[in-house]
Amino acid sequence: MPDLLWPGDHRAGEHLSDADVVRAMLRVETAWLATLVDAGVAPAAAAVDLAGEVGTIDLAALSIASEAGGNPVIPLLAVLRERLGEKHPETARWVHRGLTSQDVLDTALVLALRESIDATLVLVDEQVASLTGLARRHRADPMVGRTLTQHAVPITFGLKAAHWLTGVLDARDDLVAVRDRLPVQVGGAAGTLAAPSELLAGAGVPGDAIALARNLADRLRLPWSPPWHTSRAPLTRAADALVRSTDAWGRIAADVLLLSRPEVAEVAEPVGDGRGGSSTMPQKANPVLSVLVRRAALAGPALAAQLHVAAATNVDERPDGAWHVEWSALAQLGRHTLTAASQTAELLAGLHVDTGRMARLVQAAGSALLAEQRSIAALGLGRDPDFDPTHYLGSTGALIDAVVDRAQSGAQR
Amino acid sequence: MPDLLWPGDHRAGEHLSDADVVRAMLRVETAWLATLVDAGVAPAAAAVDLAGEVGTIDLAALSIASEAGGNPVIPLLAVLRERLGEKHPETARWVHRGLTSQDVLDTALVLALRESIDATLVLVDEQVASLTGLARRHRADPMVGRTLTQHAVPITFGLKAAHWLTGVLDARDDLVAVRDRLPVQVGGAAGTLAAPSELLAGAGVPGDAIALARNLADRLRLPWSPPWHTSRAPLTRAADALVRSTDAWGRIAADVLLLSRPEVAEVAEPVGDGRGGSSTMPQKANPVLSVLVRRAALAGPALAAQLHVAAATNVDERPDGAWHVEWSALAQLGRHTLTAASQTAELLAGLHVDTGRMARLVQAAGSALLAEQRSIAALGLGRDPDFDPTHYLGSTGALIDAVVDRAQSGAQR
Amino acid sequence: MPDLLWPGDHRAGEHLSDADVVRAMLRVETAWLATLVDAGVAPAAAAVDLAGEVGTIDLAALSIASEAGGNPVIPLLAVLRERLGEKHPETARWVHRGLTSQDVLDTALVLALRESIDATLVLVDEQVASLTGLARRHRADPMVGRTLTQHAVPITFGLKAAHWLTGVLDARDDLVAVRDRLPVQVGGAAGTLAAPSELLAGAGVPGDAIALARNLADRLRLPWSPPWHTSRAPLTRAADALVRSTDAWGRIAADVLLLSRPEVAEVAEPVGDGRGGSSTMPQKANPVLSVLVRRAALAGPALAAQLHVAAATNVDERPDGAWHVEWSALAQLGRHTLTAASQTAELLAGLHVDTGRMARLVQAAGSALLAEQRSIAALGLGRDPDFDPTHYLGSTGALIDAVVDRAQSGAQR
Amino acid sequence: MPDLLWPGDHRAGEHLSDADVVRAMLRVETAWLATLVDAGVAPAAAAVDLAGEVGTIDLAALSIASEAGGNPVIPLLAVLRERLGEKHPETARWVHRGLTSQDVLDTALVLALRESIDATLVLVDEQVASLTGLARRHRADPMVGRTLTQHAVPITFGLKAAHWLTGVLDARDDLVAVRDRLPVQVGGAAGTLAAPSELLAGAGVPGDAIALARNLADRLRLPWSPPWHTSRAPLTRAADALVRSTDAWGRIAADVLLLSRPEVAEVAEPVGDGRGGSSTMPQKANPVLSVLVRRAALAGPALAAQLHVAAATNVDERPDGAWHVEWSALAQLGRHTLTAASQTAELLAGLHVDTGRMARLVQAAGSALLAEQRSIAALGLGRDPDFDPTHYLGSTGALIDAVVDRAQSGAQR
Repeated sequence: MPDLLWPGDHRAGEHLSDADVVRAMLRVETAWLATLVDAGVAPAAAAVDLAGEVGTIDLAALSIASEAGGNPVIPLLAVLRERLGEKHPETARWVHRGLTSQDVLDTALVLALRESIDATLVLVDEQVASLTGLARRHRADPMVGRTLTQHAVPITFGLKAAHWLTGVLDARDDLVAVRDRLPVQVGGAAGTLAAPSELLAGAGVPGDAIALARNLADRLRLPWSPPWHTSRAPLTRAADALVRSTDAWGRIAADVLLLSRPEVAEVAEPVGDGRGGSSTMPQKANPVLSVLVRRAALAGPALAAQLHVAAATNVDERPDGAWHVEWSALAQLGRHTLTAASQTAELLAGLHVDTGRMARLVQAAGSALLAEQRSIAALGLGRDPDFDPTHYLGSTGALIDAVVDRAQSGAQR
Repeated sequence: MPDLLWPGDHRAGEHLSDADVVRAMLRVETAWLATLVDAGVAPAAAAVDLAGEVGTIDLAALSIASEAGGNPVIPLLAVLRERLGEKHPETARWVHRGLTSQDVLDTALVLALRESIDATLVLVDEQVASLTGLARRHRADPMVGRTLTQHAVPITFGLKAAHWLTGVLDARDDLVAVRDRLPVQVGGAAGTLAAPSELLAGAGVPGDAIALARNLADRLRLPWSPPWHTSRAPLTRAADALVRSTDAWGRIAADVLLLSRPEVAEVAEPVGDGRGGSSTMPQKANPVLSVLVRRAALAGPALAAQLHVAAATNVDERPDGAWHVEWSALAQLGRHTLTAASQTAELLAGLHVDTGRMARLVQAAGSALLAEQRSIAALGLGRDPDFDPTHYLGSTGALIDAVVDRAQSGAQR
Repeated sequence: MPDLLWPGDHRAGEHLSDADVVRAMLRVETAWLATLVDAGVAPAAAAVDLAGEVGTIDLAALSIASEAGGNPVIPLLAVLRERLGEKHPETARWVHRGLTSQDVLDTALVLALRESIDATLVLVDEQVASLTGLARRHRADPMVGRTLTQHAVPITFGLKAAHWLTGVLDARDDLVAVRDRLPVQVGGAAGTLAAPSELLAGAGVPGDAIALARNLADRLRLPWSPPWHTSRAPLTRAADALVRSTDAWGRIAADVLLLSRPEVAEVAEPVGDGRGGSSTMPQKANPVLSVLVRRAALAGPALAAQLHVAAATNVDERPDGAWHVEWSALAQLGRHTLTAASQTAELLAGLHVDTGRMARLVQAAGSALLAEQRSIAALGLGRDPDFDPTHYLGSTGALIDAVVDRAQSGAQR
Repeated sequence: MPDLLWPGDHRAGEHLSDADVVRAMLRVETAWLATLVDAGVAPAAAAVDLAGEVGTIDLAALSIASEAGGNPVIPLLAVLRERLGEKHPETARWVHRGLTSQDVLDTALVLALRESIDATLVLVDEQVASLTGLARRHRADPMVGRTLTQHAVPITFGLKAAHWLTGVLDARDDLVAVRDRLPVQVGGAAGTLAAPSELLAGAGVPGDAIALARNLADRLRLPWSPPWHTSRAPLTRAADALVRSTDAWGRIAADVLLLSRPEVAEVAEPVGDGRGGSSTMPQKANPVLSVLVRRAALAGPALAAQLHVAAATNVDERPDGAWHVEWSALAQLGRHTLTAASQTAELLAGLHVDTGRMARLVQAAGSALLAEQRSIAALGLGRDPDFDPTHYLGSTGALIDAVVDRAQSGAQR
């Protein structure tokens, strides 16, 4: 159910919803069953696709029941064992054996988060395409450059688009990097793999339980790592990358919000059905996509800070609250990022750019935009200004090319 | 639906849920209709109880539709007008006239938040009663005082309870204060009350539209204030008070978590049905209430920071994202606080205190607890230590009395 | 030394500087000596004015020495005892007896913070006077009202000033309230007042050590409170009030930054000597006061969040890091707030308001500003629009009056 | 001058101090002069080492003067031009030509930050060495594993050290990565390189000004990037890596603080001269290094959040406050991280580990630590427990080896 108090939330679909996380938990337990069978620890009959067998999970009941043990894995297992008992007794017997709650929930969140990042990256690629187009198309379309709110020197809109693109490319690099560094979590009760080792021993199977963990990782296409129950960099890295993404989009939204003000009117948001309306003022066409993107950008830093406070207060082999505070923050951050990615992609794909208006504002600003050039000339260091701001654009074209090249080559900054 | 990733969330019931906020919006619009009728602006037929007339609202559809205008009020009005049209044409005609979206949503959030604070205060009173009891009962039960993790000088458990109580009383003072300072929001499109003034003029009713706003405030039992569309202290004050509450409970939880460690074992959480279990270790009795309270305490500061960043970046007569980012943060903060209040109340009501163990640890710590007293004696400034730590308790009793008196008198610190 | 990386920091003078905090610590120890003498515990010779006797404190050396014990009180006492030894042996013998480090540092920070709040309130009163003047002077000067960046309905500049004033009045209420709720801290090693009780007993003086604490409080003109070593609401309340202040000024700065953009040009910052210059563009007149105020507003929420995280993770009778993290954050918050108060006061006192430009933008916006009025008329609910936006101002005057009345009566919202 | 309110701050030496940042600004301007000479734009006489020529800079005066233009570059240039005028007229004429304030300050902060990261990495390597030693030495020394504060299953202290090491290795990877991704900033007034292009044209030198920027980058051994005046990922990445470092050390400190409690007493901080003393209790040996590290870990997340809020609210070609708020937060974050790195390195190098006590606690916990093993056996899935917890350690040794191998190979997780 999309969040009523976060308009646009439906754009994130089911990603990182409660149902999605439950499905991911079932995937983890299903894969672990297969791992145990594979290793010769559990009988072949134990391995079933839990999602197919267990039927509908009552999420509200699960949520309520999750308080007693402090996490949703424990009551989910109760449901599984009860429902599987008769039809799949071996599955009921083997499910979760060797794992701990944190193994299942961490890995499930990793799976759900990775998928939400993948969905985000598709939209980021759309943004890159739109921005590359804007940067090229408006390579030489002059507009007023502004610093500390005041007119500075001329730029082109292509350069502005290229700077927006730089932010989006940085975000893309970061999302791609963290996407592949979200590891499986398998450690057992205190990170020693004692329980899976015990299962191996019980079955008389030689070898180290790390092999089981690696097998699970391969099944879920996740990298393996030693247990990270209390070393939370995989999650804080991901959170940081998500926030750097909303930072980049927030910066674009801030420019669109400014440039689409009636007094500036250099750009306008794409028109959508009923988009931007007011409850009382029929003339309003609010730049609502930018408003909602900016909202996400204002919210992100605090959510990541929550995850860092958690990471910094870990203790013991599993902490006393620092783990529990991560889940909701991470799910929100993932959903908000995906929603903002979608809104930004739509915004950029349909952005109206009024180059005529930009040119008129350059003319109106007039010689003020050349004050720097004149002061250089006055020192005898530059050319005589020819009073045409469009001749004072420096390396604008080459800078645009550099950013566009990066976009196309995939090179990192 | 309780949040699966925030175990215990069901304790907040419907407070500040999407459905609750929608109901509150309907209350606001209903009261406004009555105000318009009352003033002689709208015909009597316009005033109906919208909640009773409008039927079930599809929250998911409303959420999706809220993106176009950026807030849920606009699509809610569309549903209202459509459904009321035939049966209550005057209501359909008059509903929302004179208000702006922000008037409705701000006032609705204020109503829902106030009710969540009221529910929280009931639980705070329970905490006060429990802590008063603990402070009195254990007034003279000595335990080791600890600073920077090390043994310092003796205290009594009653004093510790009194210090916990100080925090809870501070929270109670703050919650009570903000509860009564959450004002109605009525300003119209840009805070001028132009539209309600126009309605008065259209109806030929003399007087200022402020009277309409005051009438609405009275109906909703809220204080009136000039419009605060961009002056967000009412909300940041409330958020700050909520976080100071979770701070106070977090501090209690931290002590319980420490004191219930097996190596200390001076207190224990109340035993609940299935409470504190593990997915693999049958012997575990985790202090899960404290864990979940600590979780809320770790999450709160960032949520309030989000609201402050919003307040600090307001602009114009309604901002471009800074308003929109408040809703979800405020709702979460209210729900988390209520949940943590309930968990803390339960924790304190059933806390097991092992005074024997406390006494044994005092004995074991022995003369180290008297090092300060000895150093005072060595300077010739105090008495000769008699080697009984329970004689080195200073004003413990009087300090407990002072805090208990405050609890009972309702006096503020 | 003012912070080079926080331009304007010199406006905070010595408030909450290292030297200021050391002076405040000496005041606390001096007052405590007087208290001990007063009570008949210490001989009269012990009471000297430490600041006058101890000479210059090497702050760098003190800072370095403060690491060993984790706080600056311990090495300060070493310096005091060494320097006082010969000339004032009784002072050297009695200084700090009965207190703990946290008593001294907490009380010193409270003193320094209170003085910085007092200095801030003087500037807030200047702001109130300027804003009251602006609200009255421009009561009927129309300008475009803007919501979500777009033109909405007309307002007057006086109303905008009144809304700014509402924020400043809220901040004033909050600062005044917390200023008087910053208590003395006297608890001794673990909050039991054992050491001062011991001193009383050693001297054969009857009575409770709470009387000593109250005496100290009176000398420093602070309210007394039971020890709050681990109940940090006094500090988080203060921090929250400081941030609500920078929120309010940030909101003003955001408007000034927007309205002083060349494309809007409705207001301008006061011109100062060299103010607003650029390193390369001689024509620039940057709104640098607003820029720096906005900076403070962006920084504040995170600093307060730091204090809340600290408050929420307190444990034992003195915590293991949660206390230590407060000092620097609190000092910065106090200084930044004072600096921003001063910059905002100067900004408002000299703000240029171009009512002609405002009127021209209203004319240029034209009938769009009356769309709401027309839609009301179309429904037959209002008057026929007369196409003069300045007639669609609703209760603007009365709302301004209400806010100005509040400013003058000192009434709280 | 080390910060009195941040004990241990002197460990950061001059890194990122005001003086250090000024020196870095002089390095940037010096290198740029050389670049201009190199390119044939400025005469050879212009290139001097500014630090050697300019004499002492009055930092307090510079700070005060920095308010007028909003940053310290403008008054620094005034000082430079005044002092260089007679002796080095060409230098006075050419200094800063082609750059903008943000070019100089951003690049200077990057230089100073990079050096502070380098200093941090030296200490991280010491931590890695200590932790590798601890992990190996205590590979098989059993201790109680704890989850949610309660006894769970046995681990070894070597495994705990290995988990700490995982966090430190993650931090090392992150610091190394961001260290090399801090680029030079050269864009001129609005990021177009117009002014340096003009200098080339004025001198009749063919070529693009990007070559000048690359030349500067090479001189400072920084990577080149298109201007990132408003795309702040280079700084937020660095801030995030710094916070992930303090997260990792905070997690170690939390464990040391717990394990060195008298009731646990499994480890103890190294004893230092006067270390851990109290102002009144002679027996105290407070774990003050851990306390101060934990403090830094609690502070970090909010500082990084400040930088993200700044990044997310950038606008125009240079923002109106979002740039200015970064400097102080970044400098603090760099200094705090370096200080905490040093404290953690010292802590780990001298950590006392009481394996006897660990073993005794394992024995005391007894069969509870084998409850999981018994429950596996009861299901017929494992071996019969032999009641020796040290036989229930799973893959502990192999996991330690995996982490130690990573430490030595430099492989990333």
